[in-house]
Amino acid sequence: MAELKEISSNKIFGGYQKVFSHQSKELSCSMNFAIFLPSDSADKKFPVLYYLSGLTCNELNMVQKSGFQQFAAKHNIIVVCPDTSPRNIENLDTSDFNYDFGYGAGFYVDSTVEKYKNFRMYSYISSELIEVVNNNFPTLVDKQSIFGHSMGGHGSLICALKNPGLYKSVSAFAPISNPVNCPWGNKNFTGYLGDNKDEWKAYDATELVGKYNGPPLEIFVDQGSEDQFLKENQLLPNNLIDAAKKAQVPIIYKLREGYDHSYFFIATFMGEHIEYHAKFLNN
Amino acid sequence: MAELKEISSNKIFGGYQKVFSHQSKELSCSMNFAIFLPSDSADKKFPVLYYLSGLTCNELNMVQKSGFQQFAAKHNIIVVCPDTSPRNIENLDTSDFNYDFGYGAGFYVDSTVEKYKNFRMYSYISSELIEVVNNNFPTLVDKQSIFGHSMGGHGSLICALKNPGLYKSVSAFAPISNPVNCPWGNKNFTGYLGDNKDEWKAYDATELVGKYNGPPLEIFVDQGSEDQFLKENQLLPNNLIDAAKKAQVPIIYKLREGYDHSYFFIATFMGEHIEYHAKFLNN
Repeated sequence: MAELKEISSNKIFGGYQKVFSHQSKELSCSMNFAIFLPSDSADKKFPVLYYLSGLTCNELNMVQKSGFQQFAAKHNIIVVCPDTSPRNIENLDTSDFNYDFGYGAGFYVDSTVEKYKNFRMYSYISSELIEVVNNNFPTLVDKQSIFGHSMGGHGSLICALKNPGLYKSVSAFAPISNPVNCPWGNKNFTGYLGDNKDEWKAYDATELVGKYNGPPLEIFVDQGSEDQFLKENQLLPNNLIDAAKKAQVPIIYKLREGYDHSYFFIATFMGEHIEYHAKFLNN
Repeated sequence: MAELKEISSNKIFGGYQKVFSHQSKELSCSMNFAIFLPSDSADKKFPVLYYLSGLTCNELNMVQKSGFQQFAAKHNIIVVCPDTSPRNIENLDTSDFNYDFGYGAGFYVDSTVEKYKNFRMYSYISSELIEVVNNNFPTLVDKQSIFGHSMGGHGSLICALKNPGLYKSVSAFAPISNPVNCPWGNKNFTGYLGDNKDEWKAYDATELVGKYNGPPLEIFVDQGSEDQFLKENQLLPNNLIDAAKKAQVPIIYKLREGYDHSYFFIATFMGEHIEYHAKFLNN
């Protein structure tokens, strides 16, 4: 069982917001994750909602800026917020790292490029972290869902689409919906996966939704109309919507008038997202 | 009328969270303040709730970490969050500044020491900023209240006690309740006011409550039981409670089991505080 080290613990909304570090096998480095435990009652077990953050973030942005704990406490759900990439890899040349590639930008793929062999965020999120959480906290192991923001919205969509039945529900705030066709996706997939664009499609929600074959899955996407990255064609939600409709995968798309890409947008609709997941997790 | 420069604007919970800068006459420097406007309806006027932050904070901590906008939107209240000190004063020797003195630590007093002549946060908060806000935003000028955290809890209490009738209500999270008798207060009052301890009493809530003479005023204090600064005798709420009882000033004191000094504590009870102020502001 993975050794966990408690970094911090704060009472909030009757539960505890904690941060732990552990040694990740997939990423071969020490990783932090935040976890909200909805009460200190020793005998209860809770469903788990995973939240994947966007570019430049770590495990704390969601914890400090979204106000999610109010809603997780109300619905009695554990919420886990991992970091967005491996960190502090020894002897790694980071001269090509930037806000949108490298540390803080793991893009939730398993790199096939030798230099980035530590960058295996896809397997870390969809496998290793689930095991660590289930082994150390009072979880209902068959009740988990996933959501995220921007790069993390992409991550949550591909984790759900690539693992039919693993998650009860999936939602995303302003996800990078079709990374093979946007600048951020091109940069990261080239870097982590190399030049063969066919291999990129295994990590693209718009490509994956057409191949989905599993228990019924609904996709819930939230998008601000004044999101600068929507306007810059980094997010491309309409490509995902078209592909989902074609594949007859139900998709809920809410375009929020006047909202941008920030945590002010996320905070506004956080309650609605957690209530949405609670319907699947608490039944 | 003061010239305002808009620094940022983000839609949240149906309203707008904005940050402005302006040139302060009291502080002789450029100051930022954050303001939440509960809707973009052009014809409405709203009451105003001022929030004073604690040591090391600026105008953004409350904006990003407390989740207050949800409740301000619900109750249709403008919330103003000023910075905690003047900043970037030219030719000022800052070698004695630390996390608990100087920039980020104005302590809401008007300094009488020549070196700190810019440090006039008391007059800035209780006079200049009110005028700036009323001149530039759709406010109900006779409907304002004040609250704050830690150093800002101290600030909110003294602003209300020194200006009978100016604020409809006052509350505080973990306030420095008796600064003349705690290390933080001693350090700041010595620095900004000099060695004459009689002059310190003009900025001490426990001293002021006994002299309060004005319209009925109730004090609402919220305190976490696991607050490290409570244990270190920086906050001394019992001194304020005793003095308020002696002076027959009603005081509500809520000791919250297990909560600490952080924004996780503030976020948990923010809804209750805004609902409390709304009773006075929206009647």
